[in-house]
Amino acid sequence: MHPVTLLGEAQLRALVPLDLAAVDQVEAAFASLATEAVVMPPILNLALPERNGEVDVKTAYLPRFEQFAIKISPGFFNNPALGLPSLNGLMLVLSAKTGLTEAVLLDNGYLTAVRTAAAGAVAARWLAREDARHAAIVGAGEQARLQLDALMLVRKIERVHVWARDVEQALTFADAAARRHGIEVWVADSVHDAFRHADVAITTTPSRAPLVDASDLHAGLHVTAMGSDAEYKNEIAPSVFEVARYVCDRLQQTRLLGELAHAIAAGAAEPKARFDELGEVVAGQRPGRRHADEITLCDLTGTGAQDTAIAALALVRARASGMGTVFHNAVTL
Amino acid sequence: MHPVTLLGEAQLRALVPLDLAAVDQVEAAFASLATEAVVMPPILNLALPERNGEVDVKTAYLPRFEQFAIKISPGFFNNPALGLPSLNGLMLVLSAKTGLTEAVLLDNGYLTAVRTAAAGAVAARWLAREDARHAAIVGAGEQARLQLDALMLVRKIERVHVWARDVEQALTFADAAARRHGIEVWVADSVHDAFRHADVAITTTPSRAPLVDASDLHAGLHVTAMGSDAEYKNEIAPSVFEVARYVCDRLQQTRLLGELAHAIAAGAAEPKARFDELGEVVAGQRPGRRHADEITLCDLTGTGAQDTAIAALALVRARASGMGTVFHNAVTL
Repeated sequence: MHPVTLLGEAQLRALVPLDLAAVDQVEAAFASLATEAVVMPPILNLALPERNGEVDVKTAYLPRFEQFAIKISPGFFNNPALGLPSLNGLMLVLSAKTGLTEAVLLDNGYLTAVRTAAAGAVAARWLAREDARHAAIVGAGEQARLQLDALMLVRKIERVHVWARDVEQALTFADAAARRHGIEVWVADSVHDAFRHADVAITTTPSRAPLVDASDLHAGLHVTAMGSDAEYKNEIAPSVFEVARYVCDRLQQTRLLGELAHAIAAGAAEPKARFDELGEVVAGQRPGRRHADEITLCDLTGTGAQDTAIAALALVRARASGMGTVFHNAVTL
Repeated sequence: MHPVTLLGEAQLRALVPLDLAAVDQVEAAFASLATEAVVMPPILNLALPERNGEVDVKTAYLPRFEQFAIKISPGFFNNPALGLPSLNGLMLVLSAKTGLTEAVLLDNGYLTAVRTAAAGAVAARWLAREDARHAAIVGAGEQARLQLDALMLVRKIERVHVWARDVEQALTFADAAARRHGIEVWVADSVHDAFRHADVAITTTPSRAPLVDASDLHAGLHVTAMGSDAEYKNEIAPSVFEVARYVCDRLQQTRLLGELAHAIAAGAAEPKARFDELGEVVAGQRPGRRHADEITLCDLTGTGAQDTAIAALALVRARASGMGTVFHNAVTL
């Protein structure tokens, strides 16, 4: 009999809160990308336009972990009309020694939300000014909320300006964020307005046309662009590449589906240009913020390495606490 | 709460035996490939040479089913030394409407073995002579056994010749198969010897060098090649393409990793040549066996469509019989 641990969303929310430990775990995954023989194949994408849905499958093997995750991320955009979230999914945790399934994490996308927010904190930790106090958030959804939560873990943010296409949603976000963190949160009239006083800005939208251009930037600003995880998504205008230092999570991936892809298409970046990866910065191979006035842009498209790291954390904690349902599966030789 | 049905290997073996219903289900999946807007992305492969392992992820959406499967197929070749099978894995069944996970089929590769064997039966049903009585089997492992079982469902086989590199294993196979089916099973001295009197032959090895060439063939023979599911695997010599009619499961796939890939590399087949697919034959778009003396070769590399079909069958039967553990998962909006 081979034991398979089953964990549900509520259990995973309890086991893996968005905290500094989660940020550190994801930071270590970025370091692995730069320093270890990580195996991270291209994303498998199943597109179902007739169902208004799609599924991405990501995976990565990091030598430092005894398990690797395979993550299934569906997005079905008719779901809200059915009273269901558009994004859901699960992670499988397989033994890196035997390939046997050790755990099924029925997180409905929660762990992805956490590891994505944690990556934003890693970017801010290494690229935003140490003394950053003012933040701008573009978008007012779940990831906007989590990005602010994550940012608060690594920078002493005192004031936030939020901009979202839906003003009502921005107002709701501002109200909740102000209460949650005991800080000032204002709704801005425009992205430009939100960015005006910001030390650090985070874009979190599924926009298909740029929201940020070079004229929105000023000396010392760090921008993290979270939105692009597909070819057709684009938050950052090519002009930004002319004034900001570009850093990304995985260059081979952002060339294809990150903000960089659009800059390359527009001729604002060379297709083969070598840019720094966040993991190289974390590992000390490349510098973080170089001076107070540097303008930096971190393009985060999401990596299987983050999934493997956060899944490993969940499994270690589940085992330590005895949480989860164990299914004893027969294995026929 | 969203219910997720969990089924283990023993339950799935009971629910989905290798029988005519399984063959018909897989045959319908092939027909779908030819007649419906099936979405079947390229295989995701995670290669872990330092672990002597690899994982393939396959999926396919067939409009006729309300669910689609995502199959995880690990192969970890140090496992036998640990008392574990090299091949294992599981299938996830997701709703094609919402993307929510409906079932986790912890089959350890059993359903793959069944759908692979069933595909062999489909090939024999449409391409082997109706009056086939003599079979040749190359290889003596689990898939050799299942292929013979499947073949017996569609043709009245009376005598089998088996050849395998390991003579002891071939003898064990012959003894067990003879008892199991009440037929004559002989161990052959060579592939050529096994093929000499065969009406239908099935190759089931992970060979990296051709085992069958044109000189092994004779008028009226049908050969199904099961072995190749990766670029480096090869059972059929390019010379066979000069004398046999070639049919495959998915042309875009066999051009890359089937027997066809090696024929193309050797110049024995045109890279863009149009060959019939088994689904086109099943759907009546292309002929099956055209005359008693035709020599046919069916190249089966395995498709996500088969996985979705067999997983759907398992889930329908599990629900009908009330089998499986239901996990009630919280879904946060």
